[in-house]
Amino acid sequence: MKASILTIGDEILNGSTLDTNSSFMAENAVKVGIEIVKKMSVADKAEDIKSGIDFLLPFSDFIFITGGLGPTKDDITIKTLAAYLGQSLVFSQENYEYVTKLLSERRKTTVEIDKERCMFPENTVFLKNQKGTAPGMWLKKNETVLVSMPGVPLEMKQIFVDEVLEKIKREYKLSSLVNKYILTAGIWESFLAKEIEDIEDSLPANIGLAYLPKLGQVTLRLTGKNVAEAEVEKFQKQISERISDYVFSWEEKDSLEKVLGEILKQKNKKVTIAESCTGGKIAHKITSIAGCSNYFNGSVVTYSNALKNQLLNVENETLEQFGAVSEETVLAMAKGVLKLIDADYSIAVSGTAGPTGGTPEKPVGTVWIAVSDGKETIAKKFNFWPYREENIELSSVAALNMLRKFIK
Amino acid sequence: MKASILTIGDEILNGSTLDTNSSFMAENAVKVGIEIVKKMSVADKAEDIKSGIDFLLPFSDFIFITGGLGPTKDDITIKTLAAYLGQSLVFSQENYEYVTKLLSERRKTTVEIDKERCMFPENTVFLKNQKGTAPGMWLKKNETVLVSMPGVPLEMKQIFVDEVLEKIKREYKLSSLVNKYILTAGIWESFLAKEIEDIEDSLPANIGLAYLPKLGQVTLRLTGKNVAEAEVEKFQKQISERISDYVFSWEEKDSLEKVLGEILKQKNKKVTIAESCTGGKIAHKITSIAGCSNYFNGSVVTYSNALKNQLLNVENETLEQFGAVSEETVLAMAKGVLKLIDADYSIAVSGTAGPTGGTPEKPVGTVWIAVSDGKETIAKKFNFWPYREENIELSSVAALNMLRKFIK
Repeated sequence: MKASILTIGDEILNGSTLDTNSSFMAENAVKVGIEIVKKMSVADKAEDIKSGIDFLLPFSDFIFITGGLGPTKDDITIKTLAAYLGQSLVFSQENYEYVTKLLSERRKTTVEIDKERCMFPENTVFLKNQKGTAPGMWLKKNETVLVSMPGVPLEMKQIFVDEVLEKIKREYKLSSLVNKYILTAGIWESFLAKEIEDIEDSLPANIGLAYLPKLGQVTLRLTGKNVAEAEVEKFQKQISERISDYVFSWEEKDSLEKVLGEILKQKNKKVTIAESCTGGKIAHKITSIAGCSNYFNGSVVTYSNALKNQLLNVENETLEQFGAVSEETVLAMAKGVLKLIDADYSIAVSGTAGPTGGTPEKPVGTVWIAVSDGKETIAKKFNFWPYREENIELSSVAALNMLRKFIK
Repeated sequence: MKASILTIGDEILNGSTLDTNSSFMAENAVKVGIEIVKKMSVADKAEDIKSGIDFLLPFSDFIFITGGLGPTKDDITIKTLAAYLGQSLVFSQENYEYVTKLLSERRKTTVEIDKERCMFPENTVFLKNQKGTAPGMWLKKNETVLVSMPGVPLEMKQIFVDEVLEKIKREYKLSSLVNKYILTAGIWESFLAKEIEDIEDSLPANIGLAYLPKLGQVTLRLTGKNVAEAEVEKFQKQISERISDYVFSWEEKDSLEKVLGEILKQKNKKVTIAESCTGGKIAHKITSIAGCSNYFNGSVVTYSNALKNQLLNVENETLEQFGAVSEETVLAMAKGVLKLIDADYSIAVSGTAGPTGGTPEKPVGTVWIAVSDGKETIAKKFNFWPYREENIELSSVAALNMLRKFIK
């Protein structure tokens, strides 16, 4: 089955509200085998809503509509849908009683609500809103189902998951989808694509491959339609073997910091960090995982040379002779932080985050990363981008990945 | 002028990527006086891209298109636009040289790129991509301008702001807009709205007020259309006076960490931090500002009690009697870190970030923050949310804001 999403509201168009509703609906619809073919956002105007539906109709078995159901003047969805479908508005006793009860309970007093607010297109099938007053509406235009829901995320999510998707699963035949993931770090999308070009070319028509990149990481998603799970897994395995050096997980929702944390927890080991250019971001990533106290006691940000010397015992001669951004310095930092803080492994990072501070030999984006287990300490040089924010993120991802590979 | 936004990519439709590009474009276009009338997302399919443009064309002076410009097989925007416009693809020597140079510099070696990647519709006006290899493209269909940009947010943002909007401002007549900002921290949107309700009601029809909230902060934007700057500034001042306790800047692009950094630089003072539940995020925020080495030598993350004692000299009796999340502990942390690291001011944070670890007296979201100048040390308790990520961000924002107010 195919579906489109139509979000209604000036606040989405002018950028003051980030539309998170549509990605929530998409993600959940796709998981049950509904293909989302288009998304559209239009203003709170009857003409725009109508022309939007007209456009989406021929491509869609369902159109999921949110917004415009509130009590203010710019909420015109109900009237517009009735007019569009050629249906008159009729009073719903059922909704009147439900809303009266809900509001009376919430405000701890009897509430008289305006009967005007309980007028709906005559052929509406109602979808229960457990968290608010505007019900979801299930309507039909030719062969397409129009589902209208409130724009408030909390209310929309409940109606969409509990009512809309359940009704569709009960009443329609959905194609079965299989999604399999490969999470990689340390390789750019274009190199990755080159590495697995022949495998991608050999995929059957009913298995698709998508590249989902973010800074320093690429997730590969294989989607099989009406195909056995084992068939998709075969390609997941084949690709993973080819690029095994970069793969850190096969779970969609995993992150490097989570995977690293699980490895440490399993081995009953702890990690500490000495950060310079990353300025606390690696520690932030590690502590973003609940339960990190099992493998993390703490860390330091030694931004100045004086502090590298004072806390980590990096010798002033080393800093003067080789500079803060050097193999010698990060090696000393990685060893030094293990003496300061109780841990089994350490990460140390020093680089030129930018935008200024580069030299011809060490341009902005030059980053040295070291990892250590107390006995062995290794360092590697990276050349990232001349942009501060991206550099910090790329360095943090590379550092976590370097320790992950070092431990294994 | 009216514009639509068309984002291309299966990853947007299936919900695996949240489309932040379109709200960025909308927000920035609206500021210069362009009205966004529709947004649409379509799949990586030529037919879908074409029918999307066909639908948007009659409503739009400009269509801002993102996505599908990468080097992989599912990136088909260039070919599709050429076919749609009836233009042939021609080799661009200019782009070939630019991309070759960019990649060679990045990879520190001569890179031979595939000439296939430098084929563009013959009438393309190129928009310089300073952060990546795919240029922006400015094309025309009848009276509508089609602007195509990469979907990578970093690259899109640079091209959109530096090239697209600048070109439009130069070459088209836009209605004159005046935007004035008030940046606040430490007050929720609904309370803020209540505080200034009467001022908002008194605004003339040609001045609008928008609330742009993010965690712990709300930016107010006053937009005047065809109105004198002084008139908008009058309301900016009136609102600022009413809520002066929460205002930290009137510059749109400011951040708390930037404002705090400027105050420290001006006073020639330094700050250090002892973080527990925020786990490095405050240090990350401070070091995200270029030039922070003027006022930041470094900091510590003391996640375990043992490390709070070892590095910061928080007495074990204090930790045992009052707990890590207590006024006594953060006061000791704030004093202790000033002894460990050379600085004039300190911040200390300890809380229960969650999702577990709460008690009836200290539920998840309980956070103690202290600030110190070595002589005076004050602490404050906050009750945030039972969600880890939001808690860490809210605590970091509150901590920076608390030191800002402490210094002033």
